[in-house]
Amino acid sequence: MRKLDVAVLGATGAVGQRFIELLENHPWFQVAEVIGSSRSAGRPYGEMVNWVIDGNPPESVKNLTVKSLDDSFDSPLIFSALPKEAAETREFELAAAGHVVCTNAGANRMVEDVPLLLPEANADHIQLIDVQRRKRGWTSGALVANSNCTAMPVVMALAPLRQFGVTKIHVVSAQAVSGAGYPGVASLDILDNIVPYVSGDEGKLETEPLKMLGRMNGEQITWLPAIVGASCNRVPVVDGHIVNVSIELAEKPDFDAILAAWEAFRGPEPVPQLPSAPLHPVEYLPQIDRPQTRRDRNAGKGMTTSIGRLRECPLLGYKFVALSHNTIRGAAGCSILNAELLAVQGYLGDFQPMTAKSYAGVM
Amino acid sequence: MRKLDVAVLGATGAVGQRFIELLENHPWFQVAEVIGSSRSAGRPYGEMVNWVIDGNPPESVKNLTVKSLDDSFDSPLIFSALPKEAAETREFELAAAGHVVCTNAGANRMVEDVPLLLPEANADHIQLIDVQRRKRGWTSGALVANSNCTAMPVVMALAPLRQFGVTKIHVVSAQAVSGAGYPGVASLDILDNIVPYVSGDEGKLETEPLKMLGRMNGEQITWLPAIVGASCNRVPVVDGHIVNVSIELAEKPDFDAILAAWEAFRGPEPVPQLPSAPLHPVEYLPQIDRPQTRRDRNAGKGMTTSIGRLRECPLLGYKFVALSHNTIRGAAGCSILNAELLAVQGYLGDFQPMTAKSYAGVM
Amino acid sequence: MRKLDVAVLGATGAVGQRFIELLENHPWFQVAEVIGSSRSAGRPYGEMVNWVIDGNPPESVKNLTVKSLDDSFDSPLIFSALPKEAAETREFELAAAGHVVCTNAGANRMVEDVPLLLPEANADHIQLIDVQRRKRGWTSGALVANSNCTAMPVVMALAPLRQFGVTKIHVVSAQAVSGAGYPGVASLDILDNIVPYVSGDEGKLETEPLKMLGRMNGEQITWLPAIVGASCNRVPVVDGHIVNVSIELAEKPDFDAILAAWEAFRGPEPVPQLPSAPLHPVEYLPQIDRPQTRRDRNAGKGMTTSIGRLRECPLLGYKFVALSHNTIRGAAGCSILNAELLAVQGYLGDFQPMTAKSYAGVM
Amino acid sequence: MRKLDVAVLGATGAVGQRFIELLENHPWFQVAEVIGSSRSAGRPYGEMVNWVIDGNPPESVKNLTVKSLDDSFDSPLIFSALPKEAAETREFELAAAGHVVCTNAGANRMVEDVPLLLPEANADHIQLIDVQRRKRGWTSGALVANSNCTAMPVVMALAPLRQFGVTKIHVVSAQAVSGAGYPGVASLDILDNIVPYVSGDEGKLETEPLKMLGRMNGEQITWLPAIVGASCNRVPVVDGHIVNVSIELAEKPDFDAILAAWEAFRGPEPVPQLPSAPLHPVEYLPQIDRPQTRRDRNAGKGMTTSIGRLRECPLLGYKFVALSHNTIRGAAGCSILNAELLAVQGYLGDFQPMTAKSYAGVM
Repeated sequence: MRKLDVAVLGATGAVGQRFIELLENHPWFQVAEVIGSSRSAGRPYGEMVNWVIDGNPPESVKNLTVKSLDDSFDSPLIFSALPKEAAETREFELAAAGHVVCTNAGANRMVEDVPLLLPEANADHIQLIDVQRRKRGWTSGALVANSNCTAMPVVMALAPLRQFGVTKIHVVSAQAVSGAGYPGVASLDILDNIVPYVSGDEGKLETEPLKMLGRMNGEQITWLPAIVGASCNRVPVVDGHIVNVSIELAEKPDFDAILAAWEAFRGPEPVPQLPSAPLHPVEYLPQIDRPQTRRDRNAGKGMTTSIGRLRECPLLGYKFVALSHNTIRGAAGCSILNAELLAVQGYLGDFQPMTAKSYAGVM
Repeated sequence: MRKLDVAVLGATGAVGQRFIELLENHPWFQVAEVIGSSRSAGRPYGEMVNWVIDGNPPESVKNLTVKSLDDSFDSPLIFSALPKEAAETREFELAAAGHVVCTNAGANRMVEDVPLLLPEANADHIQLIDVQRRKRGWTSGALVANSNCTAMPVVMALAPLRQFGVTKIHVVSAQAVSGAGYPGVASLDILDNIVPYVSGDEGKLETEPLKMLGRMNGEQITWLPAIVGASCNRVPVVDGHIVNVSIELAEKPDFDAILAAWEAFRGPEPVPQLPSAPLHPVEYLPQIDRPQTRRDRNAGKGMTTSIGRLRECPLLGYKFVALSHNTIRGAAGCSILNAELLAVQGYLGDFQPMTAKSYAGVM
Repeated sequence: MRKLDVAVLGATGAVGQRFIELLENHPWFQVAEVIGSSRSAGRPYGEMVNWVIDGNPPESVKNLTVKSLDDSFDSPLIFSALPKEAAETREFELAAAGHVVCTNAGANRMVEDVPLLLPEANADHIQLIDVQRRKRGWTSGALVANSNCTAMPVVMALAPLRQFGVTKIHVVSAQAVSGAGYPGVASLDILDNIVPYVSGDEGKLETEPLKMLGRMNGEQITWLPAIVGASCNRVPVVDGHIVNVSIELAEKPDFDAILAAWEAFRGPEPVPQLPSAPLHPVEYLPQIDRPQTRRDRNAGKGMTTSIGRLRECPLLGYKFVALSHNTIRGAAGCSILNAELLAVQGYLGDFQPMTAKSYAGVM
Repeated sequence: MRKLDVAVLGATGAVGQRFIELLENHPWFQVAEVIGSSRSAGRPYGEMVNWVIDGNPPESVKNLTVKSLDDSFDSPLIFSALPKEAAETREFELAAAGHVVCTNAGANRMVEDVPLLLPEANADHIQLIDVQRRKRGWTSGALVANSNCTAMPVVMALAPLRQFGVTKIHVVSAQAVSGAGYPGVASLDILDNIVPYVSGDEGKLETEPLKMLGRMNGEQITWLPAIVGASCNRVPVVDGHIVNVSIELAEKPDFDAILAAWEAFRGPEPVPQLPSAPLHPVEYLPQIDRPQTRRDRNAGKGMTTSIGRLRECPLLGYKFVALSHNTIRGAAGCSILNAELLAVQGYLGDFQPMTAKSYAGVM
């Protein structure tokens, strides 16, 4: 099998680097184009990138010449780690030009015909692509988003609980500095400090989960009819967003029913078979003091959401803690998983992943 | 004026050290006795203490010989930084023996006739001492507690809002490591990590504020009839507990009314005149990203509670952030302020603080 | 006494803020002008400054209108916290225009007729101002520098040991993030990390101490004839630069002689009488594990250098640890102390500090 | 091939856990016995261990019953993560009883006939086992130590430079908290702090490298005739010890010769073929600010020592920075590599590792 060429927009940034790292040795995709700022364009990636994640850039990408966002690209599949402003119109242009764009940018997530895709939770939202293509006159292109990195652990934990009727959600986050990119948070702002503010994130948390947990309804998503209240905090950890969540469930299930729902959760076929899908999308930790950011963020290679401390909430009914790796499950890793789902569902043109046969007709 | 001799129980521990530091150069009180573990007893304080707060122990205390908890003490006033188990019966014994005991221990806070005193919020609870003395047959002794360090910023922020009818309180904390004493939290447990669990604190947060915000009703406290839901987290900061709070207020005041209530709050006379009382018990910070733990914990020499980010909560009505220094306002500093109130109200025997005349008959 | 008006260049930066903080309530000087970038010019200081040190900007300075570096200034005394490039020529222009400029910038420290002043160590270097004025044709102006913040603890510790013949100095630093200004070090670069590199500092450490520890020799400084080897590291602490130092002393003094030299060190009169001079310029801590950055950086209000762990070095003879607060003693605090010395020595025109009489003829 | 059963002493401690983690899925060895404190003995490992490294204990070990140190053991090979006092005599008893003991404890490292083995640097020191057996009358038993975790990066960096005549070594460390075990360093001692003291380590650093870099000379090791001066610091990082090193080399090689020596270094055959041997025992990083603790500690799965910043030292000749993962290369990982070398050299009785044929007669 030939691997599919992919391009990475915003490749020199912190999330862009995570895309590069996760795509190294990917069984289906290979990085063929890296796109950076005009300052970097024309120079080798290895020279222009200030690699801020652990280790060093992969050798296979170091020698790629950085392209400019204004260039045209050859890769059918594009991952976008663009900042919001740059993403807003350019992602649509590239989709219109025939590329399938899987984006981590916040700019277009809430556009009505853009799926906010989280395969285990809402694989059927992929049908919005058909709506998108018909409505916009696209043939091969598409624009698919993944959620905000802090919304991610909330949605992962609540997806298995939709059956109980989620009506109220109270979230308080403790977010890692890597969520702000690089240079991002100044060290003087976060050493021995908590900053109870993350620009823009509370609004995202109070809306994105409702779209993600919504149901395909003809050509639209009907949002989950719940109310979310969110408070966001920046804390001195490198990676991993942890949330304290209180919820009201209409059905009033008992503890065991909730634990069983998390235990059983795998997401619909063929999602569990995708290369980046973790064995357990969510995992409940029985210890009284888990999940913890550093100890659990890499569960399932950073793709598992760890949950713990389910207990009664005097106000809403239940409370618990959830944790996701913010630049893997909450950003690049989810976008790659989204693209894998698009591949097996036939949305990447005639690209046939090696194992596509086994997926045929499953979903 | 002669200063009043005081004893400090648990003087070698982290909160005990804070008592020693804050009492250095106190205008009314002087440390005359330091009480430590049996291991330390009989040795000079300066040799036995592993001083974990900044700087070094005051010269005036270094040469005091550490006494044992089983000894009898000469000081009329005793500050207790004992661990829970040690505090439980010994504090009552000392009060029965005629000492006024101001304790930071959690053991006896919820005993019905023990005032959980926070002068700006509930100075009138001091009347429980009369109940206590009558009921227990004490003449000069008393036992007065201050609240849990995480309950403190919640109560400080809500005391001025009682007028609006506080009915629901949702709290998520981010607590400093100094709250766990010394050695307390292991560095391997907290560097680059968030631990979403603090043993015992959620239960305290769901009850103590209701007693503190309650009203004297004859010989008892009628608790505030509100519901509290609390989630506690340990975070990698040295000092300062920050809370994300959502509240429901029966009266539905507008923003300005809430801000005005905080602005006007001083506590009843003579509290604002006490030596350890800050100019502003609570202070609202207008910046979008404040209060912050490191930058605001020392406001009012650690006695001011900083509040910020008042905004609508889709679930309960309002949300905001509050911060108190956990070992000053939330522990030793509050106990000392409590003792100052006892002094001017005549509960410390015939001790007359220098400025007592100016307080006469005020309250 | 009327206070002397002073201007602060680079007033919105991290060191500029420290100048503002330390000058609040200064007995002799008052901030009359604040100078910032062209972006800030014309706006109130309180609006333009992103206050990164603890607390909030003083009320007295908040309403000053920020001036541009190209403006002319009325204050006879100017403190400079400019970045290197901006400082290089502008500081000389302002001195030529009649201002006494006390600078923390690195740009002009090694200019031959600019004193690198550290009052306790080399108050006599102040005579270079006479050379400077004569040579450059200035009458009232002057340019005086303080050292690099990492050189500071080295020089403070070695000044009392010059009597023993310091011949070799090996220094390895662990430097706080505040030394890099704001935003300075990105949090992703320093959380759970050590960066064994600080741009430019090793070169400064290998030269500045030799000028500072040198002797006035007619119209020049004769450098200390020693060799310095330096390695610099950035570490995750907020404030305080700590150095591991090994030294060779020609005279081979014993331990007690070294300890006695540190113990006796006060600096020449009238330095110990200056308002910002600490009681102990250096203080030896007997504990086996001190000085520690957080616990000792504020000794003497940040102006004392703490020393500890004097022991044999198999290679050079002795080794020890020293610590200074990098933005107080190592930057703004030292510049202010320098200005105080200039005041009492008559280098600030006809300004007579309140207590000047007591200094008359002392030095 | 059947795997060899191994026992881990001190299995519930921080280094013990690292042994368990690294031995999971080891191609030759399998954990058959775990030994803990008397408090843990008789209980399942999964219940008694407070797992402090990331993730959770391997399933295969969770159900092993913890044995007591006084028990007898069945495993021919024993890894020891005992504290010093417990190790001192018990390790010799176990070796005398026929076990091959590979220890990380500091207790017996400097015993004359105990090899302080670092395969890439001194594989020939393995011959001391023959001396040991003959002298002590052991047949199958042996005691082999690995070095102190801070000595490790020093020795790894210097082993390739022995050819140039290493005569002086000046080391200043910045050591991770995991080096102190669990609970180890209290968070109040290290958050926003540097502690310039690590009990016992300076003495180890000034001696152990000289034994490790020494030469087999008949039945003894002739130590490297160099002088070491060491200063040790504890810093707020989780894992990874970084050292600033200055050295004097008798041969005065130029930069390129040193870089070439590091580049070429692999260690003698069959070491590079061992399962835990990294591709590059040392790796020179060309960036001006590397190695960095967090970014480089996991190089070569934690077994590579990263080096950088080779430059002139005005005092000794050259200086550079080196970094090793302290609980992998500096502890458990090195002990396992040592055991692998013992296996292929025939010191583990009749155990034949799968790939042993390929090693036959190589060394």
